Amino acid sequence: MAEAVGAGIAKNNATLICGGLGGVMEAAAKGCKAESGQTIGILPGDKKEDANQYIDHVIVTAMSHARNAIIARSCDALIAVDGEYGTLSEIALALKMEKPVVTLRSKWNIEGAWVAASPEDAVEIAMRLILTR
Amino acid sequence: MAEAVGAGIAKNNATLICGGLGGVMEAAAKGCKAESGQTIGILPGDKKEDANQYIDHVIVTAMSHARNAIIARSCDALIAVDGEYGTLSEIALALKMEKPVVTLRSKWNIEGAWVAASPEDAVEIAMRLILTR
Amino acid sequence: MAEAVGAGIAKNNATLICGGLGGVMEAAAKGCKAESGQTIGILPGDKKEDANQYIDHVIVTAMSHARNAIIARSCDALIAVDGEYGTLSEIALALKMEKPVVTLRSKWNIEGAWVAASPEDAVEIAMRLILTR
Amino acid sequence: MAEAVGAGIAKNNATLICGGLGGVMEAAAKGCKAESGQTIGILPGDKKEDANQYIDHVIVTAMSHARNAIIARSCDALIAVDGEYGTLSEIALALKMEKPVVTLRSKWNIEGAWVAASPEDAVEIAMRLILTR
Repeated sequence: MAEAVGAGIAKNNATLICGGLGGVMEAAAKGCKAESGQTIGILPGDKKEDANQYIDHVIVTAMSHARNAIIARSCDALIAVDGEYGTLSEIALALKMEKPVVTLRSKWNIEGAWVAASPEDAVEIAMRLILTR
Repeated sequence: MAEAVGAGIAKNNATLICGGLGGVMEAAAKGCKAESGQTIGILPGDKKEDANQYIDHVIVTAMSHARNAIIARSCDALIAVDGEYGTLSEIALALKMEKPVVTLRSKWNIEGAWVAASPEDAVEIAMRLILTR
Repeated sequence: MAEAVGAGIAKNNATLICGGLGGVMEAAAKGCKAESGQTIGILPGDKKEDANQYIDHVIVTAMSHARNAIIARSCDALIAVDGEYGTLSEIALALKMEKPVVTLRSKWNIEGAWVAASPEDAVEIAMRLILTR
Repeated sequence: MAEAVGAGIAKNNATLICGGLGGVMEAAAKGCKAESGQTIGILPGDKKEDANQYIDHVIVTAMSHARNAIIARSCDALIAVDGEYGTLSEIALALKMEKPVVTLRSKWNIEGAWVAASPEDAVEIAMRLILTR
């Protein structure tokens, strides 16, 4: 599902900003690159090499989870796919910053976040919310 | 309720770490000082003067909401009183860092966080969780 | 001179990472774009709109001068052009992180940093230091 | 010398803010505690246990060298004792933030920083600069 979200972002000529590591972040970046999109990875650690292979531009923060605030602050809209506590902190930070937030198959049902039924739906909602702000 | 939490922290000879501003943060610091406890305020802005009058030690981060990660990282246990998205981000960050989290009258019901029935209960749960880690 | 440095970075197929604002940062980004290079701006404030017009990818940190540590950590080599205290902090942070540092027309003469005679010289030294690490 | 600076800070009823680790930071904190002063340590790592034994209040940033910006931002005046690149970054950041900066036996001679002849001199200059701002 993350891969399809990444692909959808690329098809909308948007840039993917993510945490740059594996799992959901890597799948989203892979999907974005498959559609010739651009990807930015904002790493929590201090090594550029931690970035997954689908990241074009690596930002090395060495700030651990505080980098979640940079992701939330830099994006135009946040799409949260699945996710545990780290993702929940990003949802909360993005809502605090009044950014549009869309969740996809999330265990968190947070007031103020939009719930998407599919990856395509998530990207469509996010793009619409960005354009109508 | 925040005032009673602050008082309880002082009575347990613990130090209150909070965001240093008004509202719940100020009430908790006031309660802590009333019981001769020590208070630390970790500010999001760049002015020491933003701290409320009950803060003994002011840390000025100029890092906006990223300072929430420093609060979560510096505490031994997090007690979330009421709270909106900023508090939710602290709950999520503290849980991600495997810190004990207690909520009091919270609108967020997050798996992994303990729910307290009263301020006294919240402090008691937090102290017990710290001691039995 | 900053423009020529930016152009040199692009000609070497490297990406320019800078602070994203005006002055030296804007001149470097302008030079980089003129040679079809890619530019990343890591902003200290909380508004994407603060970025100069030559920045392709905007990272919004809302962390004030602490973002200098992210610039130093993310680059492969640091070229400091002219510069006041903010630049000096970046030089110091990059040297602390054991990154190659080149200064150009700098008022600071810091042990461990290379001194370049021209923009072309600065880029050449930086590229050589990256390749021979 | 750092121990004498810490003692001088305590005698002036000021609070010592430092990086919280060993070496100069530990010596300064030791001197401050010997005169019953209060000490705050702002750690770069993610473990409270990294703080030296003379730190009363530990702030755990997990932000590596970016914590230097928090030290510079939180102090009323910066006294740099000896020091390598990390200290130089703090000097630069504090000057950028228009804080009074005093150096003691520093290898860096930075325009805008005061040079002290002794620990007592350093504290006296710093206290005077704070009071006359």
